[in-house]
Amino acid sequence: MNDESSVTVIRYGHRPGRDDRMTTHVGLTARALGADRVFFPSNATQAQETVEDITTRFGGVFQARCSDELDAYIRDFDDMVVHLTMYGEPIQAEIAAIRADAADTDLLVIVGGKKVPFSVYEQADWNVAVTNQPHSEVASLAVFLDRLFEGTELSRSWPNAERKVIPQSTGKRVIDTDDSV
Amino acid sequence: MNDESSVTVIRYGHRPGRDDRMTTHVGLTARALGADRVFFPSNATQAQETVEDITTRFGGVFQARCSDELDAYIRDFDDMVVHLTMYGEPIQAEIAAIRADAADTDLLVIVGGKKVPFSVYEQADWNVAVTNQPHSEVASLAVFLDRLFEGTELSRSWPNAERKVIPQSTGKRVIDTDDSV
Repeated sequence: MNDESSVTVIRYGHRPGRDDRMTTHVGLTARALGADRVFFPSNATQAQETVEDITTRFGGVFQARCSDELDAYIRDFDDMVVHLTMYGEPIQAEIAAIRADAADTDLLVIVGGKKVPFSVYEQADWNVAVTNQPHSEVASLAVFLDRLFEGTELSRSWPNAERKVIPQSTGKRVIDTDDSV
Repeated sequence: MNDESSVTVIRYGHRPGRDDRMTTHVGLTARALGADRVFFPSNATQAQETVEDITTRFGGVFQARCSDELDAYIRDFDDMVVHLTMYGEPIQAEIAAIRADAADTDLLVIVGGKKVPFSVYEQADWNVAVTNQPHSEVASLAVFLDRLFEGTELSRSWPNAERKVIPQSTGKRVIDTDDSV
């Protein structure tokens, strides 16, 4: 990925109540592991608020948005679309090609949701599986991003943070920073 | 990891209702990404049932158990304990040493839960962070296991499956197998 290309994650489908925490975790995982923004369905405002709150406190320029036009956004997306699905091709076979193709273009990553329509499979340039076993869209997104960025996402800096965790071998240490002043 | 050493995941803490899907996804992620078993708190029987049902249908020998003695299990665990926490040391700095230490011993991986007591931090041989940002215990577990096994977990076989997903570049294909006969 070059510095100008972006990675957008779409959480496709959201059932208020039942999906609240999964959708929030999709957004927080997208942020923590190097994506630039997440789009949620319009009924996931609670997840959006949580992700924005975390960004305010812990820094970075991550965007979280809700939209009722995600289908149109996917359909009209001109650059590269990856759909993470347990029915897709193995990530270990495809990731090198995906990384090469994504080097100079914007990338849209779609994670379900149970009700992903067939049109999403068709519009995706890649339908990719992190194992063909049923597990978790959060886990799939995490492994995908870690492999896409080859671990570089783990060492990013987080400008404008109000607080910062200082790694500890035992226990917790969090400092307030002046970066947000 | 040699063929005789095992990886056990403990989901520490569970709030029925609120945590049901997160706890289930911890278990399914542990299974899909190469762990041998998951232990849940005794109030997470619904998650246990879901994971066992998936194992019956999709194969493998994964174990899911509930216990009200997880604190004692952790305290008495003789081999290696890794606690995944956003307050810990960076995984990218520690994973090679963890992998080396785990080569010939059993490994216990603990993921929270909001209410992980300080005793767990103390009993862990390694407190490890997948970024020091707040995101998801499911994402952290996924990245940890993928790096622990260096991707080999993605190509495992799943004996005794009733059904099997055949990877597709577009769409879904699932076959019933005779392996369970």
